[in-house]
Amino acid sequence: MILAHTNISAQTKDMMIRLSEIEIDSSYLQEYNNILQEESRTSVQLEPGVIAIYPMYQKENPTQIRILEIYANRKAYESHLKTPHFQKYKTSTLKMVKSLKLVDMDNIDSQTMVEIFRKIK
Amino acid sequence: MILAHTNISAQTKDMMIRLSEIEIDSSYLQEYNNILQEESRTSVQLEPGVIAIYPMYQKENPTQIRILEIYANRKAYESHLKTPHFQKYKTSTLKMVKSLKLVDMDNIDSQTMVEIFRKIK
Repeated sequence: MILAHTNISAQTKDMMIRLSEIEIDSSYLQEYNNILQEESRTSVQLEPGVIAIYPMYQKENPTQIRILEIYANRKAYESHLKTPHFQKYKTSTLKMVKSLKLVDMDNIDSQTMVEIFRKIK
Repeated sequence: MILAHTNISAQTKDMMIRLSEIEIDSSYLQEYNNILQEESRTSVQLEPGVIAIYPMYQKENPTQIRILEIYANRKAYESHLKTPHFQKYKTSTLKMVKSLKLVDMDNIDSQTMVEIFRKIK
């Protein structure tokens, strides 16, 4: 598979960073996680402007999902919202989501982010 | 500078992932951010077992800090706690921190994390 590669250090100024806080209805948890996994993986693989969509859950409370999202810029984010994989995720998980908070973030130190990505082989 | 490189895909099973939630006394905010920046950058540069210490703040409430921390394993985390740069951070910021919550996380999909790191040049 060919990944959509990204030059990160040229872009930090325009980046859109978000930490989404999502609570899932426990009866749908496994189903939700499967759909989110497919959506995040597809976005990272296919969209050059999606730098990261990194989903996690709280170990002590697995219905509490956190997603670190990094987009190259606002245009990349808006284009992501229109993709078939995001639309499929959004419509199929609507009934599973109990609460959703989209929290806009910024780097304290862009250089550290760049070095983290550079460090990993 | 030579970075401490890490092979991420061999390690996902043992990883320790954390999303720290920190509130800072606003009168110390700039000072705190400077110290955190130095600590996170030094940790990523010098410690092979520190995969990521990625500090962010909430745009609408900059005293709310979030740090995504990824350690290769528990041993790497424990060794990090003993480093001079972490000890310096801890002691010099003690009075600046209003609240601190260390939330243990896990990946919903390890493969996505690996692909995010592979994607970036």
